[in-house]
Formats: sequence, C-alpha cells, structure tokens
Amino acid sequence: MVLEKIQKENDIKKLTPEELELLKEEIRQFLIESISVTGGHLASNLGVVELTMALHLCFNLPKDKIVWDVGHQSYTHKILTGRKDGFSSLRQYGGMSGFPKADESDCDCFNTGHSSTSISAGLGLATARQVTGEDYHVVSVIGDGALTGGMAYEALNNASSVKGNFIIVLNDNNMSISENVGGISQYLSGFRTADAYRDLKNNVMNSLNHIPIYGERMVKHIRNTKSSIKQLFIPGMFFEEMGIIYLGPVDGSDIKEMCRVFDEAKRVDGPVLVHVLTKKGAGYGPAERYPSRFHGAEPFVIETGLPKNKRTKANYTDVFSTVMKKLGERNPKVVAITAAMADGTGLRRFHRNFPDRFFDVGIAEAHATTFAAGLAKAGLIPVFAVYSSFLQRAFDQILHDVCIQNLHVIFAIDRAGLVGSDGETHQGIFDISYLSVIPNMTIMAPKNKWELSDMMKFAVTYDGPIALRYPRGAAYDGLKEIRQPIELAKSELIRKGSTVAIMALGSMVKTAVDVVKLLEAEGISATLINARFAMPFDKKAIKELPSEHSLLVTMEENVQSGGFGEHVTEYVKTNGIALEVLTVALPDCYVEHGNVEVLKNELHVDAESVAKRIIAAL
Amino acid sequence: MVLEKIQKENDIKKLTPEELELLKEEIRQFLIESISVTGGHLASNLGVVELTMALHLCFNLPKDKIVWDVGHQSYTHKILTGRKDGFSSLRQYGGMSGFPKADESDCDCFNTGHSSTSISAGLGLATARQVTGEDYHVVSVIGDGALTGGMAYEALNNASSVKGNFIIVLNDNNMSISENVGGISQYLSGFRTADAYRDLKNNVMNSLNHIPIYGERMVKHIRNTKSSIKQLFIPGMFFEEMGIIYLGPVDGSDIKEMCRVFDEAKRVDGPVLVHVLTKKGAGYGPAERYPSRFHGAEPFVIETGLPKNKRTKANYTDVFSTVMKKLGERNPKVVAITAAMADGTGLRRFHRNFPDRFFDVGIAEAHATTFAAGLAKAGLIPVFAVYSSFLQRAFDQILHDVCIQNLHVIFAIDRAGLVGSDGETHQGIFDISYLSVIPNMTIMAPKNKWELSDMMKFAVTYDGPIALRYPRGAAYDGLKEIRQPIELAKSELIRKGSTVAIMALGSMVKTAVDVVKLLEAEGISATLINARFAMPFDKKAIKELPSEHSLLVTMEENVQSGGFGEHVTEYVKTNGIALEVLTVALPDCYVEHGNVEVLKNELHVDAESVAKRIIAAL
Repeated sequence: MVLEKIQKENDIKKLTPEELELLKEEIRQFLIESISVTGGHLASNLGVVELTMALHLCFNLPKDKIVWDVGHQSYTHKILTGRKDGFSSLRQYGGMSGFPKADESDCDCFNTGHSSTSISAGLGLATARQVTGEDYHVVSVIGDGALTGGMAYEALNNASSVKGNFIIVLNDNNMSISENVGGISQYLSGFRTADAYRDLKNNVMNSLNHIPIYGERMVKHIRNTKSSIKQLFIPGMFFEEMGIIYLGPVDGSDIKEMCRVFDEAKRVDGPVLVHVLTKKGAGYGPAERYPSRFHGAEPFVIETGLPKNKRTKANYTDVFSTVMKKLGERNPKVVAITAAMADGTGLRRFHRNFPDRFFDVGIAEAHATTFAAGLAKAGLIPVFAVYSSFLQRAFDQILHDVCIQNLHVIFAIDRAGLVGSDGETHQGIFDISYLSVIPNMTIMAPKNKWELSDMMKFAVTYDGPIALRYPRGAAYDGLKEIRQPIELAKSELIRKGSTVAIMALGSMVKTAVDVVKLLEAEGISATLINARFAMPFDKKAIKELPSEHSLLVTMEENVQSGGFGEHVTEYVKTNGIALEVLTVALPDCYVEHGNVEVLKNELHVDAESVAKRIIAAL
Repeated sequence: MVLEKIQKENDIKKLTPEELELLKEEIRQFLIESISVTGGHLASNLGVVELTMALHLCFNLPKDKIVWDVGHQSYTHKILTGRKDGFSSLRQYGGMSGFPKADESDCDCFNTGHSSTSISAGLGLATARQVTGEDYHVVSVIGDGALTGGMAYEALNNASSVKGNFIIVLNDNNMSISENVGGISQYLSGFRTADAYRDLKNNVMNSLNHIPIYGERMVKHIRNTKSSIKQLFIPGMFFEEMGIIYLGPVDGSDIKEMCRVFDEAKRVDGPVLVHVLTKKGAGYGPAERYPSRFHGAEPFVIETGLPKNKRTKANYTDVFSTVMKKLGERNPKVVAITAAMADGTGLRRFHRNFPDRFFDVGIAEAHATTFAAGLAKAGLIPVFAVYSSFLQRAFDQILHDVCIQNLHVIFAIDRAGLVGSDGETHQGIFDISYLSVIPNMTIMAPKNKWELSDMMKFAVTYDGPIALRYPRGAAYDGLKEIRQPIELAKSELIRKGSTVAIMALGSMVKTAVDVVKLLEAEGISATLINARFAMPFDKKAIKELPSEHSLLVTMEENVQSGGFGEHVTEYVKTNGIALEVLTVALPDCYVEHGNVEVLKNELHVDAESVAKRIIAAL
C-alpha cells in the first residue's frame, strides 16, 4: 500500500508519479470503506482527492496555510497529514473531528465549520504575514456554493488590498457548470493553462463583439440559468473586476495540471483565484449519482450505497415536512424559504407541491431573513426553515428587520440542541439565548411529534415573529395522549405531583418523563410541566407552584447563559416567589462532536444525572 | 412658497415644471435651516433632493413601494409625504424619526436603519406581489457604500429570480466615481439615456478590444483604485452578469432625465438597476466640502457651517482614539479594523500614524470579525472598533470564528447603551446579552475615561476574545481618584457602606454615584462597586456581600433579558447566597429616538428612579 508511506505531512512529496496514481485510488477506497462504517461526509471528500494531493505537493505544510471553507471536505487533507488512523473514531466522542481542528494538527491553520469564512480568514493570515514580515503562502479553498454567502463577497471586495501572494482555490463542481452554462462552458472546456487563458480572454471578447446587442443577449442567457452567480466565473471577469487574477478553469482530476497552475499562482504578487473543476462523489457510483444523499452519510453498504440501519421512526424534519404541505394546502399565504437546505430542512415536499411559493436563496441566512420580512410586510406568512447554528448568521436581521416591525415571520429551527457528530460549530445550543434577547420574539419548543405539528399551526395563526425549535433525529412519539390546544405563553400540565415541579422545554420533556420515574422510585413526588414557550414563558403557572412545591426545576437543551432557566430564575427571584430553582441546561461552553446520548451523559443532562441533582437539591 | 402646496403624497405631481425648479431650492433651504436647529443627517439628504422628487413624480405612493436603504436619506421623502411640520421635532423624544417608520406614514413601506437591507426587503415585497396577484412597483434605493455589505450581494444574487418589475436605484456619489475611475469615468460622463447606454456598451467593448491584454491592463487599473467594487458599476456589466438590466448612469440633479429613465425602468419585466450620480451635501458649501462632518450633524451655524455648541469635554471616542495611538506605538502587533467608520470610531488617528496596520473593510462587520480572527491566529492583536448595534451583524462570526478558537481579538464597542436621536435601530442596548451567550468571551465596561484607557491596555495583554463597551457622548471624568489596576473578573470598590450594595457597570457607575447620594440623604448607607466585568463577573465580591448587606442592586445600560443583572441573579439564586437582588436594566423593548437623559428618565434608569426603586425594595 502506498498509503502506508504517508505518515505525516509532506511524505506525499517523496512518491513517484506512479505511486501518486496508486495513492489517489487507495485514498478513495479508504474513504469509501471507512465512511461506510462510521458515516460522515463522503461526496465532497471524494470530489477533492486529487485537488488536495496537488495542494500538498505544491505547498509546504505547516509553514504554508491552507484554510478549508466549511471544512467537511478536509478528509484527504487529514490522511495526508498523518491522521489516517483517526478515521476509525471519526466524529465520535473523543475521536477525530470531521472538520479542521488546530488542536489535531499544526497543518489545520484555521478551524472552520460554517460556510463562506475562508477568504476572510485567509486574508487575515496573509495580511498578518505582511505586518510581521514573515514568508509563507496562504490558500483559501472555497466551494462554489459557499460563494453565495455574503461574507465571501465582503472578503473578495477586500482581497485586492492584500500585499503579497494570496491564493483562492475555487472548488467548483463541473457537473453544475455544464448544466448551467451550456455553450460557453463547452467553448471553455478546451482551455486549461494560464497562457491559453489569455488567448481565451481575447477570443471571448472578440466573439462577444459579434453579438449585436451584447448586453441583452447575455442577460437573456443568464436569465435562463438557475444560479446567476455561477455565470460570473466563466470568463473570470467577475474576479478580475474585483482586482483578483483569474486562472483556470483547470481539471480537478489532473494532479499534474493543477500543480502547474498552482506553481503559476504562487508567483502572483497579490490575490489570485484558481478555478478548479471537481466532481462530487467522484469514483463511487452511488455518490456520483446521489451526491446530496452522500453529503453527510449514515453508515452504508458499499455494494448498494443503501444505509445500513433502516430508520424505523420519523424524525422531526419529516414531521415538519408533512405539516408544511398541509399548511400550504390550507393557506395560500404560507410560503417557505430555505438557505440552500431544501432537503436538510424537509422543504423539498413543499417545493414540489407549491413551486411558486418556495424560495431557495442560497447560503444566505441574512438575506433570507430580511427577504422574509419583506414577504411578511406585504401580507404573506413566510416560514424560514433553518438549522439553529446557521440562523446565528441572521441575528441582526431578526432583531432589526423582523422584530422591530413585529412582522409575522415563522422561524422553523431544525437541529436545535445537540447535533452530535458535526461537533462544536454545528451544535444548536445557543438559539434560546440569542433569540430571547430580542424584543417581540416568541420562542416555542414541542415535546413530541404531534406538538410540532400543533405548534406550526399555531404559528401560522399567530401574528408576529415566532420561532419553534426542534432537535435533530427521531421525533419523540411518547405522551401521545397529552395534547392540549396551544395557547400563547401557556404551559401544559403533564402530571400532577408535589414537592418538585419540573418545567421541561421541548426535547427535555422526554428526559423529564424518565426523571419523574426515577424520582418516584425514590419516593419523591414530582409535577411535570411541558413548558412549551421559552419566551414569553408561563408566569402564571410558576406563580401557582409554591402552594404545593418547594423546588422548581427547569430543563432545556440550550446553554445556561441567557437561556430559559435563567429567565425563569430572574422572574422567581425578582417577584419574591417562594421557590428554590434548579436550572438544568447545557454548560456555558462549546460541545465537541460525539453521539448525542453520550454527550448528554457527559454534560449531565441525562435523566439519571438530573434525578441525582434534584435529589441533592432537596 | 411652492413648499406650502405639498400637503401630502402625490401633491408634487400637480406642480408645473417651473414650480418643481423652485421646490427643489425650497426643500434644500428648508433642510439646511431646520437641521441647523435640530441636528440630523444633512449631507446625504441634500444629495438626494432631486432623486426623491423624481421618484415621487414617477411612482404612485403609497401603492408603489419605495424602500430606503439605511433610511437617513429619507428627509425629502418625508417632506413630500406631508411630514414637513415634523422637522421641528426631528429625532426628539416623541417627535419625528430620522428614519422611515411605517407608523408615521403609509408611504414608509419598510423600516430601515442598518445598511444593505433594502434589496432583500424589496425582493420580499416584489415576490409577495407576485404570489398575491397584486400590481405595484417596488423600488429599493441603495447607496454605493451599502453595496459593500454582504447581504446586498446575497440579495443581488437572488434578484434575477424575481417575477415582474423590480427597480434598484443605485444612489452613487459622483465625486467618488470621478476620483476612483479616472479615464473611463470621463468617457462615460457623456452618456445619460438608456439608448445611449446601448451604444456605449458597444463602444466600451470595442475600445477594450483594442487594448492588447485586456485582463492584465484592467486588473492593473483596478489595483490602483481604492474600492474595487466601485469599478464594477462602470460598464454595468457586474449587474448584467447577475441578470439585472443596467440603466445609466444618469445625472442625479436632472429631474426630467431621471423621470425618463425611471419610466423606462418601469417597463422592464424583471430586475433593473438605475445608476444615479448624486453629490453629497449638494447645494450647501460646507456640506459639499466636508460631507462626513455633515453626515450626522449637530446643530450648526448656517453661515459658517460650524457647530453651535462647542464641545467642552472629550467623548469616549476621543479617549479611545488617543489610547489606540499609544498602544500602536508601544506594540507593533496591535492593528486596527473598522467597517467604514474610521471617523466615527476614532480610528482616523491610528490610520494616520500606522497606515500599514489599519484596515477599513467597508460596511462588512461579518468579514471584519473573521478577518480579525485570521490576523489573531497569525499572531497579531487586532482591535475591531465598531458601534454596538452594527456588531450584531457579526454574531455568528464572533461565536464561530473568534471564540471557538479562543483568539485574541479585541472588540472596542462604541455607542454601547442608549444612543439617543438615531432611535431604535441604533440603540446599543443588546450587546451584553448577545455577547454573554458566547463561551470564552470576556466583556468589560469602563466607569470613566481613565478606565477606558486602562481597560484597552488590559485587553492588549489579555490572551483571548475580549470586548469593552462604552457609550456615545461625553466621557465621564468623575472618580478620577479611584483607579485600581484592572484584573480579570475583578470589580473595584468605590465606596464602602452597608445594607445596600450597588454593583454598577460602565456608564451606570456615574448614575450610581448620584443614587448613593440620594440614598444617603434618606439615611440609607450604600456600598458602591464598579463591576468592571460583565462576564466573567466578580463572583467573589458578591459572595462576601451578605455579611453586611441584604440587598444587591445591579445597574447596567443594556436590556434586562440576558444582561448582567440576570446572570448575577442566577448566580445568587443558584448558590444560595443570602441576598435579595434588584436588577436595574433597560426594559426588554425597543427604545425610540430622543435625548439620552430624557430616555433614561422615561425608562426609569435615572438616579432618582433607581433610588426610589431601591427604597421600595428595602
């Protein structure tokens, strides 16, 4: 195995051309085999095997800095920097992260996770190099999708001010290119090197000149394609107009060719973009055919590409998907927005049924939110379905555009709470805190799958900004018999007891049911309340507790700081309510990757830990 | 006076061409006179008198929708919609806002305040029109500066998908254009109409073709200019490549010409951008010469343009400016970042002294923050000076790029607390809440001007993400004699008393000094503690209080939800510390415009109100 020769960074440089050919096949085979066991990001990683090898051949790690945008495509980079053995514990608690992490390797120069940050971070590194008088290359590797995020543009707009060499590698899926651009794409496909590119540019200019009304024709052409941003890459003009030298496009499966272009890029004194055409899932049939299914894959059977473990329960995303279709049928004002996550958020079905009322805005949560505000202002009822950690991008827009005007925008927040294997950048554990800072905002969390449905219906009838948060994974299907109508700021009594009152929010109701059982076994009687509303929470219910309870326990899957429990504590304390309060929440720290159940145990928010803490508090 | 004939929207349409000529002069005179008395945004408003008149002539308000980006340029719009009389109370408590407000007029279709939101909001309105089958025009008026904000790009990237007419008016200061683009700008200046534009485009293509290597020459040219984004407008190609029809440039002082182009724009079935060249401060010499001084102007003497009231005290921005220069001299690793606010944040002096260590990134807080993370990762000490309400734009970047990696980035947060006349969109009253959600973040607030200086020095020696917040306006110069060294998470005892312990943060220390006097007059002895750190706060000091105090009063200029007081209350309650807690904070709502002292009284955070509340609590 050639792969055995790769023990650390730069070992790849010792290989012969023949060994490099073998290595790329071995890496591909290794990725397919190990991800089929552990799960993980597959399609994106198979797409950049050769690109990553070329970068490692041309640059000198860890002296040179490579920033991986998003970072889920860094698996080959991890292999080439001596972390092959880490793949057996990939994304598991205590194991290797699926994203670049500086504490794993010196070669991971900047941690990533969310989209569109790499050019900003790379510019920071390149600018610092200038100020400190050091000498190294900085390379930001960014996908075409990530370029729809506004901060990538903010960074591009600043790129021309960088002094010294700064390389942006545009990792562009060539399949999309050919779909999107038709004729011009074919015209371009013959050109590979920088010299040819110069000729090309003259040719393009000439040929455009022969079109009678260049502008109108071009505009019409662009109109007919889905992503207007994509078109801008074609002649590279967009980047050159930003003051960035454009090289490419280059074949992302041709290591030798990429090395030639990277060597040319390294000689540029300033910002330079290398346009590399790659193919998601390359080398594994099922992933090539269904790249989105193999984006973040569960363990699968290699021969068929099918998941190893069949899902037996619906997850919250499925439930949301179903209720959105119903709501769309009942109310023509309901429209749906996603930021490039139609499948992940479950909006695909709404899209199929109501194509004119569905809007995918790209990776653009800030725009999505203000766009929703505009839709609401004009009388529609927009539902923005988004992952909790990505909605962080729209904090100001929620505060400034939606909530000041008290607009009826519904935020359907998926992946709220611990998300597991994606780790610290993706945990949805801050949303209650950052949303409850914002005046006029209402925040709900359903206890089970039926309540998610009821809450969505309530949200459509409510008039104002309203969010509901639900976790990743299987929807809780217990407590089916408890289904009181949703009322604003009203909790739901699940079980009447005494001494201890547990007020659990959303996903923690399920845990609380087990807590109550454990307390009962110890002879402690507990009341269980489904909080439903994190803001405004049910003050009336809390006020009435002291007659029969001495301890109020709040439970939430959110950090403590600024969370539900803190607001309740403040209320109890300020209003002189005779209750001790125990807040059960996640600790105020980032939570690494790992199985959600394992993480809950480690963070002491599992039923046994909570029961113990309650007993201690009594 | 022609102005008297304007009582409501569309009255302008009844005027003769001669009257329109008079009207623009009368509006300009009126703006200069009334703003010289009340203060307000002048330069931007003088620049768009004719543009606004042309919009009102060509569109039908309130049926048609005009979204004003940022909104501080909406004064003429307010006059033309019957709000002339409101200018006597402009930006005063209970008076007219300086920004568009739907509750002032039906003609204000979408509230604005922060930059770069108008295209997103306009797309929302235009898309809703399509879904509901209504028929109106939507116009987003955006400045060239606002186009450096990423969300404007996210929106432009989605513009081509809009169905029906959608007009973007690019309000571009033509002075900057000629400075930035030299030759091509002059070449363009002869062209005004859309027909001519088509010819122009062919001519540009032809002339570019005669340059041997178009790409390289163009790049070199663009490199030599400051703002690369600006260049993109020139041939309108940038927009056309985004699928947006480009019309212009058109002279923003020529109403007739603008009307011709707007009428043409109205006929476009899809997104169209009208490029209008305006001049900041047009028609008033001092404002033309010093547009940035007349951006947000204090009351001034019309003849000279000089402020009516001389400042006698340094404000916090001045103090920050001075300490930054010192820090820059002492430590070559200190670098400074602004998001288009070099003057407002006081970084101009640092820029003059250390031009290679100063970075103005445009209106791009998200990029600024991740750029800072990159600088810090490479060993520098970046100081991002930013207004509190604008930093909301970077919430995710602080959380995801700076704090997960625990990077040494200093956030110098100006305008923290009540800002006064700019009103609800600009109040800096949320930063403690949203920052204290974020793990690893340290938050400080200085009691007076010397402490701001000490805290900046502390922040440079500290190793990790650290923010300090200070208010708009005159720096407090009391308590000069109290100046203990800054230590992490350590408060400062100002005055030892008993019964009541007041722990005041930042600007509220000054108020607390008065509160103590009022309490003393009532025979109540109070301890006064300068909290210094909102996070991590001084737990040790709080623990020791119960021996001599029964009531702890927290004071902060931030909303209550998620603020300093709530965190302290949670701590006291959870740790069984025998103290009652009274949290003095701003109520959890948006705060309108008005004089800061008036607002403090209204919100019951002035010394008298606080003293009364303390007495009641005892």
